[in-house]
Amino acid sequence: MNQPSDHHAHHISQQFNIELDEVKSHMLEMGGMVEKQLHDALDAIGQMDSELAQAVRAEDKRINRMEVAIDEECNRILARRQPAASDLRLVLAVIKAVRDLERIGDESSKIAKMAIKLSEEETTSLGAVDLRHIGERVARMVHMALDAFARHDVDAAAAVAAEDQTVDDEYDAAVREMVSFMTEEPSSITRALNILWALRALERIGDHAKNIAEHVIYLVKGTDPRHRGSRAQ
Amino acid sequence: MNQPSDHHAHHISQQFNIELDEVKSHMLEMGGMVEKQLHDALDAIGQMDSELAQAVRAEDKRINRMEVAIDEECNRILARRQPAASDLRLVLAVIKAVRDLERIGDESSKIAKMAIKLSEEETTSLGAVDLRHIGERVARMVHMALDAFARHDVDAAAAVAAEDQTVDDEYDAAVREMVSFMTEEPSSITRALNILWALRALERIGDHAKNIAEHVIYLVKGTDPRHRGSRAQ
Repeated sequence: MNQPSDHHAHHISQQFNIELDEVKSHMLEMGGMVEKQLHDALDAIGQMDSELAQAVRAEDKRINRMEVAIDEECNRILARRQPAASDLRLVLAVIKAVRDLERIGDESSKIAKMAIKLSEEETTSLGAVDLRHIGERVARMVHMALDAFARHDVDAAAAVAAEDQTVDDEYDAAVREMVSFMTEEPSSITRALNILWALRALERIGDHAKNIAEHVIYLVKGTDPRHRGSRAQ
Repeated sequence: MNQPSDHHAHHISQQFNIELDEVKSHMLEMGGMVEKQLHDALDAIGQMDSELAQAVRAEDKRINRMEVAIDEECNRILARRQPAASDLRLVLAVIKAVRDLERIGDESSKIAKMAIKLSEEETTSLGAVDLRHIGERVARMVHMALDAFARHDVDAAAAVAAEDQTVDDEYDAAVREMVSFMTEEPSSITRALNILWALRALERIGDHAKNIAEHVIYLVKGTDPRHRGSRAQ
């Protein structure tokens, strides 16, 4: 024990573990920022707060830069450390997860854009309940997916993936409601469409939360859970 | 020359090159299938052909399975060959590109879904010109992006990425047109909304073509072209 070469190998492997922990922390840190973006976007659209919405849109650039930085960090680890097995799966899962997080940031930014448009019109409560309800659900999914990633928790990840169907169903119901409203009150079409775009952004955020959950399952089990059964469109 | 060890090393490196060529071919093959899906979806919505639309929706599962298979192939190469430099970049670019291709397949499937809905209603030419025009543009972008990938052509890739802004502008104009139509003819709202969803799917396909083009730039230059400037939402 503790021969020089062992010591050296141990040192390298310890350094490698630190790098893996770091890249995972960076991903989770980006996840926290994206969660805040989503919450702020939902507050902005709920309260017609165009100032908060502008702040969300400005912050999106920082999230984009973070994705590129973490992606490069992963590429460096792959090139220098040539990880195998679960270490390799972790790096690949992080590469995929940061892309989903960046998209959640993008969709949050779109919600903020709709908040700005809506704040310019006269206020009504149209769509507010659906937006809040579906918004809270997808925000919870994103949080649970990141939590499952942090703890390598397959059961929690499977629960997030399953919840996506509920979001899709609620989204479909909200769209039908908005369409019948538009038919009855054509003067509100522009406003109703902005709400529809925001709802669609939420539906996509649900998809990305599901993707992150599936990356966790791949990370832990080493098998790809996607496309095993039929897929909701 | 031709000593046993050299010969052995040469054999391994040759085998590795074959594997890299293969995974790239598989990606391009998937790309060809996805291009066909997009063309068929556009024909289906242009001609209100619900049978062709059903075929597109059925074919989507095969594309999903292909993504998983190529992804697993890439993971195997990373684990066994531990590629470096441009070989590593190729494998990572393929992993990312197949995900974009799978999404293009998904969006094509959504266009097919809208074709089925539209074919159930009375036929009008509403939105047909916009759909065909934007549809042809994004189909060309997808083709050029795959072509740029096949030839490692950075200039062609940059041209595709630049074209995405035109798609976004045309999409915005088409949405405005559809909204003013809905306001004038509230009885056509359901139909106009289906066209709006199809237009949005095309706009997203443009995004994915742009992504694939950016993977080509990363692959050749080793730098990530994303998020360097401002980003169109």
